[in-house]
Amino acid sequence: MVVVPASLAEFSQILGSLPGPDKTARAAAEAREPQLTKPAGSLGRLEELAHWLAAWQGRHPPRVERAHCLVFAGNHGVASRGASAFPPEVTVQMVANFRAGGAAINQLCRASGVDFEVIELELDRPTADFTQGPAMSEEECVRAIVTGMQAVPDDIDLLTLGEMGIANTAAAAAVCLGLYGGTASDWTGPGTGLSGAALDRKTELVAAGAEANKALLGDPLQALRCLGGRELAAIAGAVVAARLKRVPVLLDGFICCAAAAPLASVAPHALDHCRVAHGSAEPGHRRLVARLGGPAPLLDLGMRLGEASGATLAVPLCRAAAACHGGMATFAEAAVSESPPVA
Amino acid sequence: MVVVPASLAEFSQILGSLPGPDKTARAAAEAREPQLTKPAGSLGRLEELAHWLAAWQGRHPPRVERAHCLVFAGNHGVASRGASAFPPEVTVQMVANFRAGGAAINQLCRASGVDFEVIELELDRPTADFTQGPAMSEEECVRAIVTGMQAVPDDIDLLTLGEMGIANTAAAAAVCLGLYGGTASDWTGPGTGLSGAALDRKTELVAAGAEANKALLGDPLQALRCLGGRELAAIAGAVVAARLKRVPVLLDGFICCAAAAPLASVAPHALDHCRVAHGSAEPGHRRLVARLGGPAPLLDLGMRLGEASGATLAVPLCRAAAACHGGMATFAEAAVSESPPVA
Repeated sequence: MVVVPASLAEFSQILGSLPGPDKTARAAAEAREPQLTKPAGSLGRLEELAHWLAAWQGRHPPRVERAHCLVFAGNHGVASRGASAFPPEVTVQMVANFRAGGAAINQLCRASGVDFEVIELELDRPTADFTQGPAMSEEECVRAIVTGMQAVPDDIDLLTLGEMGIANTAAAAAVCLGLYGGTASDWTGPGTGLSGAALDRKTELVAAGAEANKALLGDPLQALRCLGGRELAAIAGAVVAARLKRVPVLLDGFICCAAAAPLASVAPHALDHCRVAHGSAEPGHRRLVARLGGPAPLLDLGMRLGEASGATLAVPLCRAAAACHGGMATFAEAAVSESPPVA
Repeated sequence: MVVVPASLAEFSQILGSLPGPDKTARAAAEAREPQLTKPAGSLGRLEELAHWLAAWQGRHPPRVERAHCLVFAGNHGVASRGASAFPPEVTVQMVANFRAGGAAINQLCRASGVDFEVIELELDRPTADFTQGPAMSEEECVRAIVTGMQAVPDDIDLLTLGEMGIANTAAAAAVCLGLYGGTASDWTGPGTGLSGAALDRKTELVAAGAEANKALLGDPLQALRCLGGRELAAIAGAVVAARLKRVPVLLDGFICCAAAAPLASVAPHALDHCRVAHGSAEPGHRRLVARLGGPAPLLDLGMRLGEASGATLAVPLCRAAAACHGGMATFAEAAVSESPPVA
């Protein structure tokens, strides 16, 4: 059972005392790796992925049997201001599409053997327009964080996180601007497909959001509250709950990473149990990934859908990494000659 | 039933009359794509992959149910000259490991639901040392090509190709040098792990191979015969048989692409039904991929194992692409509002 916070200050305290990696499991993975029947290093990043899974599952060999996908959906006050190419009612419509099994993420979960769950966050009550002040009250933000924390199942091996929410690339851009500074255009991109004057309008909204809330933005969790949205707060909560439950996490693209970013701003190692699964075509993502400072995204396929689509597409890579690490024969078992030591 | 060639000249004739893509299937894929419940283009390269599968399977919607992995194994005369970090007997040992299920490719096939087959090509009779003349007689080369052609099953949806053969990065480098010119060091890399003086020695062997066979290298298929090996010739045969059977192909890394490259030098569109599945860490691969001129590799994970490992790791991407394309609801079916047309 994970203890949930009653305030952002309590959430910040949880971030200050997160468990670290399991060094014994990681050492066991590192010790097994050179014994496996392949040239040293020849599985590239699959090797590091297996060690990462071991370290954060706290188990050697690691396994990826039960993978779970959580998509959080929220609505944004700023959507009605023209921050998206799609109308706000699409959030509700897409949630229905998720439930009916017709969205991309449904096919991706089915193809990869990943359990799927969508969680709606008060869709009938959009967040406040962040150009006029905080998007959420502290109570609203904490409630969304707790919903995210409580959504993480026990006994899963890997978690993929994603979102749906018309206008939430604007929210993500505003959170990044609040956390890292720069200009609104550094962080604002086409989202579902804006360009030209409509993109300029979105950029202005993002800038106005940061300006309207600037007095509060010294605290990363206030950036999440004031400029994010319920689905972003829920993702942040799920990331933390996964850490507490020893579940490695695959983060999706720009919005998902922006939701997790405040955690790293509070506690530099808060995302060590996460991997950025794919590099999004949304231009702010590359900049954000650089700020987060972890390994490069696992996939780079020009995707920009959200819905945990990129994260879930990377599940088979983790499964493959665990399968190779745990299932391959050693040189001794297979009676394969090793490379002679370098003279 | 695929008609097999009796000579390299007959193989060349087959290359001159390969079937093209199914334009009807591709048009159907392109027509369905914008109806699916996602912003236009938001699935990135998964969209193009689905269209490619449709075009080369000759079927809409495309499907990736039966995927098959073929690994060809061969031995090389040049191996005894110090062209690899591993001793030549490792080829046979690794074939036994494949059959026992202990190699990386076995785990990858199992994790991805891909059927696996390893085919040995006269392992007790290495090719001739290419620094002294042609690695294979024409009869030997054709026999290997035919073995590769006959190995491609009917009724599969996707084929992954790979190889095992100590010293075959040297053979692949020599084929590339024969086809594209440059210097031996442009194409020669560490393979299983050479460096320093040992890598210099390998580079010299590659240069000597191209020099010893230079009179014949104007013909790309002679480059395959004189500098390649049986497993490379078999891969070339399998690529062609797959085309004739309407099976899209995922190519593995440097050696597999070098085996396929002579086909593209004979007939520029010969590899249109293939995708390079991953970018290998073997340095010649990037240069070779640029020469082949197709789309960028699907994965870039620093792998350099061979065995079809990178190709097979990309099967879930193709499966995901087909699943999204075929399984997603349309805007009309899901009653999701579309993006208003740009003013």
